Amino acid sequence: MRPIEVTVWGENLHEQTDAAVRELYPDGMHAAIARLIGARLPEARIRTATLDQPEHGLTSAVLDATDVLTWWGHRGHDRVDNTIVARIHQRVLDGMGLIVLHSGHESKIFTRLMGTRCSLRWREGDDRELVWTVAPSHPIARGVPQPIVLPRHEMYGEFFDIPVPDELVFVSSFSGGEVFRSGCCFVRGKGRVFYFSPGHETFPIYHQPEIGHVLANAVAWAHQAEISPIMTRRSQHAPAGWFEKT
Amino acid sequence: MRPIEVTVWGENLHEQTDAAVRELYPDGMHAAIARLIGARLPEARIRTATLDQPEHGLTSAVLDATDVLTWWGHRGHDRVDNTIVARIHQRVLDGMGLIVLHSGHESKIFTRLMGTRCSLRWREGDDRELVWTVAPSHPIARGVPQPIVLPRHEMYGEFFDIPVPDELVFVSSFSGGEVFRSGCCFVRGKGRVFYFSPGHETFPIYHQPEIGHVLANAVAWAHQAEISPIMTRRSQHAPAGWFEKT
Amino acid sequence: MRPIEVTVWGENLHEQTDAAVRELYPDGMHAAIARLIGARLPEARIRTATLDQPEHGLTSAVLDATDVLTWWGHRGHDRVDNTIVARIHQRVLDGMGLIVLHSGHESKIFTRLMGTRCSLRWREGDDRELVWTVAPSHPIARGVPQPIVLPRHEMYGEFFDIPVPDELVFVSSFSGGEVFRSGCCFVRGKGRVFYFSPGHETFPIYHQPEIGHVLANAVAWAHQAEISPIMTRRSQHAPAGWFEKT
Amino acid sequence: MRPIEVTVWGENLHEQTDAAVRELYPDGMHAAIARLIGARLPEARIRTATLDQPEHGLTSAVLDATDVLTWWGHRGHDRVDNTIVARIHQRVLDGMGLIVLHSGHESKIFTRLMGTRCSLRWREGDDRELVWTVAPSHPIARGVPQPIVLPRHEMYGEFFDIPVPDELVFVSSFSGGEVFRSGCCFVRGKGRVFYFSPGHETFPIYHQPEIGHVLANAVAWAHQAEISPIMTRRSQHAPAGWFEKT
Repeated sequence: MRPIEVTVWGENLHEQTDAAVRELYPDGMHAAIARLIGARLPEARIRTATLDQPEHGLTSAVLDATDVLTWWGHRGHDRVDNTIVARIHQRVLDGMGLIVLHSGHESKIFTRLMGTRCSLRWREGDDRELVWTVAPSHPIARGVPQPIVLPRHEMYGEFFDIPVPDELVFVSSFSGGEVFRSGCCFVRGKGRVFYFSPGHETFPIYHQPEIGHVLANAVAWAHQAEISPIMTRRSQHAPAGWFEKT
Repeated sequence: MRPIEVTVWGENLHEQTDAAVRELYPDGMHAAIARLIGARLPEARIRTATLDQPEHGLTSAVLDATDVLTWWGHRGHDRVDNTIVARIHQRVLDGMGLIVLHSGHESKIFTRLMGTRCSLRWREGDDRELVWTVAPSHPIARGVPQPIVLPRHEMYGEFFDIPVPDELVFVSSFSGGEVFRSGCCFVRGKGRVFYFSPGHETFPIYHQPEIGHVLANAVAWAHQAEISPIMTRRSQHAPAGWFEKT
Repeated sequence: MRPIEVTVWGENLHEQTDAAVRELYPDGMHAAIARLIGARLPEARIRTATLDQPEHGLTSAVLDATDVLTWWGHRGHDRVDNTIVARIHQRVLDGMGLIVLHSGHESKIFTRLMGTRCSLRWREGDDRELVWTVAPSHPIARGVPQPIVLPRHEMYGEFFDIPVPDELVFVSSFSGGEVFRSGCCFVRGKGRVFYFSPGHETFPIYHQPEIGHVLANAVAWAHQAEISPIMTRRSQHAPAGWFEKT
Repeated sequence: MRPIEVTVWGENLHEQTDAAVRELYPDGMHAAIARLIGARLPEARIRTATLDQPEHGLTSAVLDATDVLTWWGHRGHDRVDNTIVARIHQRVLDGMGLIVLHSGHESKIFTRLMGTRCSLRWREGDDRELVWTVAPSHPIARGVPQPIVLPRHEMYGEFFDIPVPDELVFVSSFSGGEVFRSGCCFVRGKGRVFYFSPGHETFPIYHQPEIGHVLANAVAWAHQAEISPIMTRRSQHAPAGWFEKT
């Protein structure tokens, strides 16, 4: 069986300027995310890409060869080129999986796919986050502990301005009392999209095995070994009886 | 009670150049749609707007005063100014209702809200369309005959490249055998969006009372007498205990 | 306009034997719930019914005249007669609204409508519950504060073994860190069903105006002024062309 | 990897009394269904069971060893023992997959899981049925032709009185103009349920490879290699901090 081709994208900015982040992720958050997924998904072939590369490392060739793209961005949302965003968008609609992480909720690619603002409430404090499974038979929840405990994490709270998820897998609570739909599945075009909120840069979230467990499940879920041949790139004329066998 | 403020937008192009359309809709499709809604919804105050007007008739003042906007466009999708599209988009996210009609499936505002291509299969032939209710207790289906018979209509067929509707109200069949999700509800931001596929310009769809029945129900459903004060325009900081009564 | 006919059902058992409950609800929880709804919904005509009445107060005549039934039960679930449960079930499928409260999650009528166990985790402690709106434009959330604060309440936590709600309106958090889908809409047959978890008997939940606000919104949402004439009581033969106008 | 354990249940009544059915399915419809699934799913171990066997062939031992159960019944719905129905129900809630076929829409197990009447409109005539995919990226639609053509089949038409499916995969049209939600996914408890309407006993539906394709996809989808350990058999007390690591 062909391996799952995964591209882990990270903007890799905080790591350059913030010593605390660099200490946690000396070779970048993208590298840690790639390792975390690879540890549980040996059938994946994982590459990374970053903002500062030509075309952000996301050339047409790379994207065409990618089954599932993961996205971590924050400070550099505006620096992502609109042409590249349009290219990713088209690839998702054509069947590529997309995993959007944490502050990626306000990335160009996620808001374009959602059609909404994807705004939320936030607080960097000392909240503990608990990630609860509300869909035990969903593939992304498979084997995940109930709950996942993140000893310290940034609070993300409702109202989260997204369309109603096609499947809601996780809901988080925070010490301060807020709740958040932290694991949300969407189908857009022929692609599967998963948003997962854990992953603030100043906490060792991407060193926690349970998070790797969720990410690996999400990659496997978002990957389609066979993409539907139904053509969606444009509306097409269908003469009467076009589907009849001749 | 304050009347529902409805703005009926029509691109009003086919009516200028196609004698058959002009005969059916001598004062424009928008005028016919406005009449059809008004006939069943006396509590609505209805204005119309068209592509050729300054700002397409959709100034900030008009949109701010609009509770529900209906949209019929086709040939002129590309001529709709991006600034106006962005303005409508923001108004929907802030709670304005939007009813997208027929060929509006490929309008800029609809594809932006959906995040997908909204492509489909089509055929201008002599199909009969039957519009079936699959959600009998939905407000938009209230009092609507099962099925609505459109003696002749353009075929729109699956696959329709939209996100899964939050509520599926109508499914159509065509003489040629195709099916189509013809009445679809979406919530986007704080706004309610309804797509309804009947309405090809060369057929007297907007003279048929059952269509008016659906449109009036849809306007009433999309209208919110009271918009949620929850702020979604940007993510906001929430200090611990912000919701405590002092 | 015809008033909305509401029947508030309470098993009225704790009130008889538990002094603390009787002190909070001297004339029964059902009476308090009826008052709370009536205070915000003057267009409703509200009666109450209890377990100890003949046919639990839910004769065919009463149910046939009821637009929306609210249900609070706990200790007496098993004492509810199966014939009455079947009668309520049929009425819901025919279009009556049903609001199931708190411990009603394990009532016969709710589990029959859901098809699942409706089990959950619980704790009677000193948790504070916060009820968060995750669907700001839903009619049941209209005007409801974000969040509702219940200073003390029984904890109900996930996993809550219900089908995925057709619409998820509220999610609660508890001091202990649990989350719960506390406001859930379902359509079953032609009836609308709302489950709302606040309402433990030892706390003054049904004296809190925000709870009345939600309940009144829920009654208005569950009520249908006009029930679809589509016949669902049995499968029926449909000769070819049955829908043609003659 | 452990094989998928599939039990194909057929009431096997029409085959005994109706020569036309027996000619199509000389060793019973269940045998044909088993063959059809096995042809595409070599990793499955398939057994059959019928109404006339002790406990209808569905002893606790058989069900406990079954990953996915398929169900074809019609004339004998009332002869299925309530004890066995309750046993199947509990197994589904505990994670067993269930595929309900054609006239199984009114079986005891399906209506119990749905909570509704599952009634519909029907006609035995000479309709052609077209089965259209409306969810191209769903695992059950993988590789399925668009549309599947059933040259002759019984008409099943809307309104189909089921809860809104968690995922709608197929919609059918019939020559007579009716439409039907013919492929519907539901999650109930920890089990996955798929309803698929093709399969009338007087047509060679279960000799058609595309139908086997759908059934094999459905079995693979409904099967969970690992069932969530979250306990749902009853509500359980959760002391504060029960999830803390000690």
